[in-house]
Amino acid sequence: MPLSTIYQPVEEDLAKVDDLLSSATEVNFHRLAELLDYCLKDGGKRIRPALTLLSGKFYDYNLSLLLPMAAAVELMHTATLVHDDAIDQSMVRRGRPTVNEVWSEDKAVLLGDYLFAKAGECAADTQNLRTVKLFAQTLATISAGEINQAFNAFNLEQTREHYIERISYKTASLFSLATESGAILSQAPENSVKALKEYGHNLGIAFQIIDDILDYISTEVDMGKPIGSDLAQGTLTLPAMLILERYPGDNPVKRVFQNRDKQENTKLALELARNSSIAQECYQVAVDYCSKACQNLNLLPYNASHRALTELANYVVERKR
Amino acid sequence: MPLSTIYQPVEEDLAKVDDLLSSATEVNFHRLAELLDYCLKDGGKRIRPALTLLSGKFYDYNLSLLLPMAAAVELMHTATLVHDDAIDQSMVRRGRPTVNEVWSEDKAVLLGDYLFAKAGECAADTQNLRTVKLFAQTLATISAGEINQAFNAFNLEQTREHYIERISYKTASLFSLATESGAILSQAPENSVKALKEYGHNLGIAFQIIDDILDYISTEVDMGKPIGSDLAQGTLTLPAMLILERYPGDNPVKRVFQNRDKQENTKLALELARNSSIAQECYQVAVDYCSKACQNLNLLPYNASHRALTELANYVVERKR
Repeated sequence: MPLSTIYQPVEEDLAKVDDLLSSATEVNFHRLAELLDYCLKDGGKRIRPALTLLSGKFYDYNLSLLLPMAAAVELMHTATLVHDDAIDQSMVRRGRPTVNEVWSEDKAVLLGDYLFAKAGECAADTQNLRTVKLFAQTLATISAGEINQAFNAFNLEQTREHYIERISYKTASLFSLATESGAILSQAPENSVKALKEYGHNLGIAFQIIDDILDYISTEVDMGKPIGSDLAQGTLTLPAMLILERYPGDNPVKRVFQNRDKQENTKLALELARNSSIAQECYQVAVDYCSKACQNLNLLPYNASHRALTELANYVVERKR
Repeated sequence: MPLSTIYQPVEEDLAKVDDLLSSATEVNFHRLAELLDYCLKDGGKRIRPALTLLSGKFYDYNLSLLLPMAAAVELMHTATLVHDDAIDQSMVRRGRPTVNEVWSEDKAVLLGDYLFAKAGECAADTQNLRTVKLFAQTLATISAGEINQAFNAFNLEQTREHYIERISYKTASLFSLATESGAILSQAPENSVKALKEYGHNLGIAFQIIDDILDYISTEVDMGKPIGSDLAQGTLTLPAMLILERYPGDNPVKRVFQNRDKQENTKLALELARNSSIAQECYQVAVDYCSKACQNLNLLPYNASHRALTELANYVVERKR
């Protein structure tokens, strides 16, 4: 099912979130406006703001408080992408040159800071101190996850538990912020807040696992960015871990991490993941997290949002980009 | 008068702010703890948290709300320094290698993000949405100022108005956040909030002008970092502007900006500022802002904080590092 169909219950609201994002680009200083325009109108999937809006529609919600929170999570997400690309010196994202590629790394770092700030302003516009605090804690969690990843680059001694912890910090935390804040802002009872938070967490883990699989088995055209980039950055993801488990002696992942014939061995590692059951095994792990996510929804009222969140869980594992 | 004497009315409170900063370094992940420890225990002057505490002691204050705000401004300041050093590839600050120098630029970017997040958490701990919003707006202002500066690197066509606007964004905004938030959190009447905000603004402008003078006339030993760095980065500050005004033809600043014999001409520009009335003229501009800052205090009750804020204005123009 395409995202546009899944988003149908919040279609108009998402357009209003886009308006809020556009208004963030209206600044005096035209070079900054240009940067903001470039990174906020790039056709992202808008999954995180959709999660906030959908999660916020089970109980007694006030749209004028949900909208800024949805904008806040999207702005935070964009900021982390801008910083990640600068740090990794990535050249292409979503089929276009990255901010660091067009304007240099220093501009990308400062633009990311500006986006974090605008995200914070939007979070404050919820008029709710609990969501504001959660927002700041989530940014701390994401940054700690990224720092963890940076210190573990090219480290072969990482377990699956490390991997799940790492993606829980760097990806799932923002998904659960998106859902939990929607619940809080709509006066959901605490067990529903917890259920939606857990749903976001499990969905986020599944989302990142799929991202990591696609970096092995997709194509640059589908992804809008080079594949094999995790290996190039020395990030040990689930497909690489399964290769290491299955071939305990020498193997292409080990060789890439030990800087032996990197290009050739990256190609071999991708082929190994593609032409074995490894990709399928990784998919199964993601599917299991998505099933958990759907179970988390059980105690919530059955309505259009409930249906959409279930469909979104299916979309996440089926997506090709 | 040394800072320790000026800070006397808030000495115990500043120790509690240090405790809050220390508690921010208590994290599971030991490599992150090491980074936080390094950049939060480096003997900064603590001017910004002192401003919040002093500004918060004119009316009906609750120390448990002032302390997290004081910690928030110091954390935000530290984050901006960590990012600035990474962007400028600076190697030394406060007499020690920078974070980017010890751990690499990518770690510095992520650490700065983490510090912004912890700053946001502290701001949320004020339980006051107005200060939270102000906090986020200030980070946006600072980042916009830095982006402005980055786009104007090596641009000789900048007026004094541009300069004052730029330092107002990148430096004075945080000083005025520090003072305004202290006032807000202590239930100050609106005209006092405005007066303390203006005081912070004027003090911040003076502070940055002095910083920019010291980058021409101080020494690396006194400053704990190389001097002449503004010229090296292509940042046009007040001393450089006065050189350009006084020598409208060719001059060492122009030559540095046009990449002609950079090292030799940097030396000449510093000598020119030192051995002429240029440094003195710059000082006079800073002194004028400090006088304005002291005038802003006129409508506030006369107490120990009032005295300390006046002394701090004098310290700012007299400081040697």
